[in-house]
Amino acid sequence: MTLNLYKPSLVHCITNYVTANDVANIVISSGNSPIMADALEEVEEIVALSDSLVLNIGTLNSRVKDSMIKAGKAANLLKKPVVLDPVGIGASDFRSETCFELLKEVSFSVIRGNSSEIKAIYKNTKSLGGVDVDKEDEISEFTLKEAIETAKAVSKMYSSVVVVTGAIDVVTDGKKTYIIRHGHEYMQNITGTGCMLSALIGAFAGPNRDFLLDSSAFSLCLMGRAGELAASKMIDEDLGYSSMKAMLIDNIYKLKKDESERNFKIETYE
Amino acid sequence: MTLNLYKPSLVHCITNYVTANDVANIVISSGNSPIMADALEEVEEIVALSDSLVLNIGTLNSRVKDSMIKAGKAANLLKKPVVLDPVGIGASDFRSETCFELLKEVSFSVIRGNSSEIKAIYKNTKSLGGVDVDKEDEISEFTLKEAIETAKAVSKMYSSVVVVTGAIDVVTDGKKTYIIRHGHEYMQNITGTGCMLSALIGAFAGPNRDFLLDSSAFSLCLMGRAGELAASKMIDEDLGYSSMKAMLIDNIYKLKKDESERNFKIETYE
Amino acid sequence: MTLNLYKPSLVHCITNYVTANDVANIVISSGNSPIMADALEEVEEIVALSDSLVLNIGTLNSRVKDSMIKAGKAANLLKKPVVLDPVGIGASDFRSETCFELLKEVSFSVIRGNSSEIKAIYKNTKSLGGVDVDKEDEISEFTLKEAIETAKAVSKMYSSVVVVTGAIDVVTDGKKTYIIRHGHEYMQNITGTGCMLSALIGAFAGPNRDFLLDSSAFSLCLMGRAGELAASKMIDEDLGYSSMKAMLIDNIYKLKKDESERNFKIETYE
Repeated sequence: MTLNLYKPSLVHCITNYVTANDVANIVISSGNSPIMADALEEVEEIVALSDSLVLNIGTLNSRVKDSMIKAGKAANLLKKPVVLDPVGIGASDFRSETCFELLKEVSFSVIRGNSSEIKAIYKNTKSLGGVDVDKEDEISEFTLKEAIETAKAVSKMYSSVVVVTGAIDVVTDGKKTYIIRHGHEYMQNITGTGCMLSALIGAFAGPNRDFLLDSSAFSLCLMGRAGELAASKMIDEDLGYSSMKAMLIDNIYKLKKDESERNFKIETYE
Repeated sequence: MTLNLYKPSLVHCITNYVTANDVANIVISSGNSPIMADALEEVEEIVALSDSLVLNIGTLNSRVKDSMIKAGKAANLLKKPVVLDPVGIGASDFRSETCFELLKEVSFSVIRGNSSEIKAIYKNTKSLGGVDVDKEDEISEFTLKEAIETAKAVSKMYSSVVVVTGAIDVVTDGKKTYIIRHGHEYMQNITGTGCMLSALIGAFAGPNRDFLLDSSAFSLCLMGRAGELAASKMIDEDLGYSSMKAMLIDNIYKLKKDESERNFKIETYE
Repeated sequence: MTLNLYKPSLVHCITNYVTANDVANIVISSGNSPIMADALEEVEEIVALSDSLVLNIGTLNSRVKDSMIKAGKAANLLKKPVVLDPVGIGASDFRSETCFELLKEVSFSVIRGNSSEIKAIYKNTKSLGGVDVDKEDEISEFTLKEAIETAKAVSKMYSSVVVVTGAIDVVTDGKKTYIIRHGHEYMQNITGTGCMLSALIGAFAGPNRDFLLDSSAFSLCLMGRAGELAASKMIDEDLGYSSMKAMLIDNIYKLKKDESERNFKIETYE
């Protein structure tokens, strides 16, 4: 199986206004194109133009919720991959009810969240930590096994590839599971790294719809390695997180262009 | 004819949430001020305060569409320049219908788009490439003459200055046409360079309402030259597109401040 | 009295889409967390999760106005600090009416604006300069006394700490007044420095709700000193305002981390 990483794809993002610019720019830097459109009147046509769809509930409202459901159904009919980013699913009833309504109405190819968000989907409950991961849910060597079990269970519940991000990343299709240790803790200090990753997963899902486990793992590695390099330069040059964000996006372009720099490491979990 | 480039103007932008921050910052770096306001309740008053209006349909919805029409009519009554950026006009019926409704209800001083967008206005049809230019519509030496004819026709249809951006830029008032070869292909790899340019055109239109062909050409040169310098530094220092975006905006400020750095080249098309 | 500067707080921002990304990133760089949520359906729950609330009317619309009132009332009931940023209060009747409605319905812990905005609240009138300060309202040594009297009067009218930003910053609780001369005039050339400051004031208000005068003064110094350092590096390295924005956010992180770099100077006004 060889991934198709160089066929430019168009990814339709219905996403939050906080990180939309970074999401668009990271998608372009990955060699793909974004289109942001959230009007009920046009989402079906935009889905038809696009290779994949990403639904991100970061700044949800009832107007955009309806557009998400309509777009998701259209993508399902056209067999285009759909990614869900359940940002802060636990923060309010409105977010969790919307997520579960989306999960009921739309068939998602990939669900990407932190471990609190994936756990909230698993337990059908709310977490209480806002949009960041709860400290007790953070993935470490000690909690890895449980996190994997939860991810696999969610994967089976929704027939989706599930991506759980944290200190250690997990990606599973319910049968095969990869563990990825790329990335840097400083990435938490940039708003939207999760949103950006979900959009990258969507962008690479388009031309790889039969290999979503592997294309998601590639996106995780690309993002993680770009973050490592950015954090390392931030530390070396005594900069801060805004410079790191620019370098993160710069590195997506550089790693995409130059395969020899990648050195991606993916472990298969037995 | 001498352009008034140093009288600070206030430009009212009803624009998309993806690139609004970069649009605001580039306007400030050009020595002018932006005001973003899209509520139906206030757009008429904001227009009255401002020197010009820019309507950008990048993330259109029905609420903002109504605000655009109201704002455009108010600007027409007050004889303030209005710029249309028909982002992705071909991507959906909603976008094209809205554009043609805007073009019917509002008299635009300047229309700025890529060649697919200008062609969609000319042909009253949809293109099908999302928000980026269709490959076959790209302006090259071979297609330049046709692109100019299309731009002149649209200019006459709507009594507007028409700006077509691409590898070669065209600006025409239907009678006189300029060709500008500034800019760099890497600018396509930054989201919102078109939106930023449309806002600059709006900002310099305010104090130059009787010289819109020339003030638009100046804006094109300023943006193009800033992009060339940014691309060149990006390549020299082995950076990526996020760094290039910052340098692009930085260079607008530097080129505006220091006339000797400009070296703008404008060709008159015979 | 010692401020609690190292307990991470969660600040709920109902803010404009132009500067939301920078607001989120500066809050994180200050060691705190932002959550952006503006849906009527969820704001009460988000307030309950958060340590403070910031209401910013930069891109107001009627939907979000209702969410602001609901969120503000919820925060008042839960005794969580609420900050008002009356962006461009004078630019339209809609903005000024909304501000006065907010001031009637919600008890604000801190009101942060430029001197035109604070004067508009004081006089219950509109200014006419858009979202920037009117030239005649700018705080200088000559107008400082009047600006302080206005700030103190607004402070007493609304039982709020009032922060007035400009060439000289003023913060008062109606009894005690501080004057802060940090900052750099170039900060005006970056969109959203006011929005970012209001969010920092909110973030540090959460764990210091009985010391809001001092925590607001700290936020002002942090922002001002970060801006000075960024402006100085921008000039030294011949950069522009986009680079300066990145350095401003970088410096918030560095100044927060390393107390020895701060050198904050706060004058008590007699």
